[in-house]
Amino acid sequence: MSGTDRSRADAADALARGAPAVVLVAPQLGENIGMVARAMLNCGLTDLRLVRPREGWPNDKAVAAASGADRVLDAARLYGSTEAAIADLTYVLATTARPRYMTKEVLGPPAAAAALRARAAAGEPCGLLFGPEAMGLDNDDVALASAVLTVPLNPGFSSLNLGMAVLLTGYAWYAAGAAGDVAAAADLIMPEQTRPANQGELLGLYQHLEAELDSCGFLRNLQSRPSMVRNLRNLFGRARLTEQEVRTLRGVITCLVEGRRKRS
Amino acid sequence: MSGTDRSRADAADALARGAPAVVLVAPQLGENIGMVARAMLNCGLTDLRLVRPREGWPNDKAVAAASGADRVLDAARLYGSTEAAIADLTYVLATTARPRYMTKEVLGPPAAAAALRARAAAGEPCGLLFGPEAMGLDNDDVALASAVLTVPLNPGFSSLNLGMAVLLTGYAWYAAGAAGDVAAAADLIMPEQTRPANQGELLGLYQHLEAELDSCGFLRNLQSRPSMVRNLRNLFGRARLTEQEVRTLRGVITCLVEGRRKRS
Repeated sequence: MSGTDRSRADAADALARGAPAVVLVAPQLGENIGMVARAMLNCGLTDLRLVRPREGWPNDKAVAAASGADRVLDAARLYGSTEAAIADLTYVLATTARPRYMTKEVLGPPAAAAALRARAAAGEPCGLLFGPEAMGLDNDDVALASAVLTVPLNPGFSSLNLGMAVLLTGYAWYAAGAAGDVAAAADLIMPEQTRPANQGELLGLYQHLEAELDSCGFLRNLQSRPSMVRNLRNLFGRARLTEQEVRTLRGVITCLVEGRRKRS
Repeated sequence: MSGTDRSRADAADALARGAPAVVLVAPQLGENIGMVARAMLNCGLTDLRLVRPREGWPNDKAVAAASGADRVLDAARLYGSTEAAIADLTYVLATTARPRYMTKEVLGPPAAAAALRARAAAGEPCGLLFGPEAMGLDNDDVALASAVLTVPLNPGFSSLNLGMAVLLTGYAWYAAGAAGDVAAAADLIMPEQTRPANQGELLGLYQHLEAELDSCGFLRNLQSRPSMVRNLRNLFGRARLTEQEVRTLRGVITCLVEGRRKRS
């Protein structure tokens, strides 16, 4: 590594402290992944996570399109599912332009940047979730997220290239720090002995509840089951549960069904 | 022109009133001009001016890269010099990342957006000047401009693709106008057929859950019962439940305990 490369890396590392991960779900084109890497490094983001990239990985076209942002590509990590890619994160924003039939907090770029900065300042690992180029995120992936990030654009022509979408959201984060003010977003006050639940713990709660609801017949209508599952995950996701509360809720579920098991 | 195309065009025209022209000086690649057109229309900009495009004009690669922003390309005007391209404008910002050895006002995106909005409100035609991909604007072109617009980026990796540069500056302009329409803080988007639960409905849910938890023994420790009840109410209260979700959760509780009752 040359001296120039070293100082570039140092600058990026300094910026990247507390920076959100960028999670691309099923990206279609290697070229777009490269443009995402370039846009990320422009904004001081370095943690790239790829869920099932269609053209495989590594990818030569990604390297060409990254225009020198190789270190972001080199450090990219591969995952088999969105759940696995965000398991260690506590606050995840799903980027989507389309309204979803879910009850979910929706943030514009400044509010999203403030929320990400505030979470990072509290030591919480955060992430931004992007869907495939043609379709965007599906409802199940949106349901996993803590909130939705929407970039308001010309309503007559709002479709953004994937790299452009990463740039606009990444820049909002970068500019919020460059401005020097970590805006005080809604802070969550919690007891000292606990911490925000991560996505892996939340998923454990969801699956525990869904298994019991399958067992008692609440989810027996197979046609409405997927939207029912999404709605339940959404409402618990909005509550910003602590790790302690996840354990409490699992205890609640177990207690409610326990008597039944004992007696059956 | 179809009805959809017409309404798209109307929306863009409404946005474009007072919008700055985008002037590309000696752009090298047709593909980049297409990406610029797309980024412009995303942000409600429609006045594209080309100064000596290297590959000539019109350009098929520009059309392919514009992803439907054809009307911007169709209306693009060709000029032989930067002076001619900006002759009718009264306020022009030169976009450049590099410091120039000139005494010149330098604006970041929010200040530039405010200046452009203020000039447009006063009836002044404005423009944004972008240099060729590899070199950026030369000093003579910068000298023509009223001020310099610099987008602060990662100092270790600040080189932006031309389309990306137009997007970031165009979005700053767009967002400055849209700020009134777009809720600043977190909006909760919910399906039309529901509404936020009221406190009476929430209390009904809490008491239903607490009665069942008393019954199954979860709240049997009388010393910790009050704080446990508060914690559970808190976590559901944070979720900002809809009336529909309250009914769903009461159904979940009933289903989980139902089998037990049936069997006991």
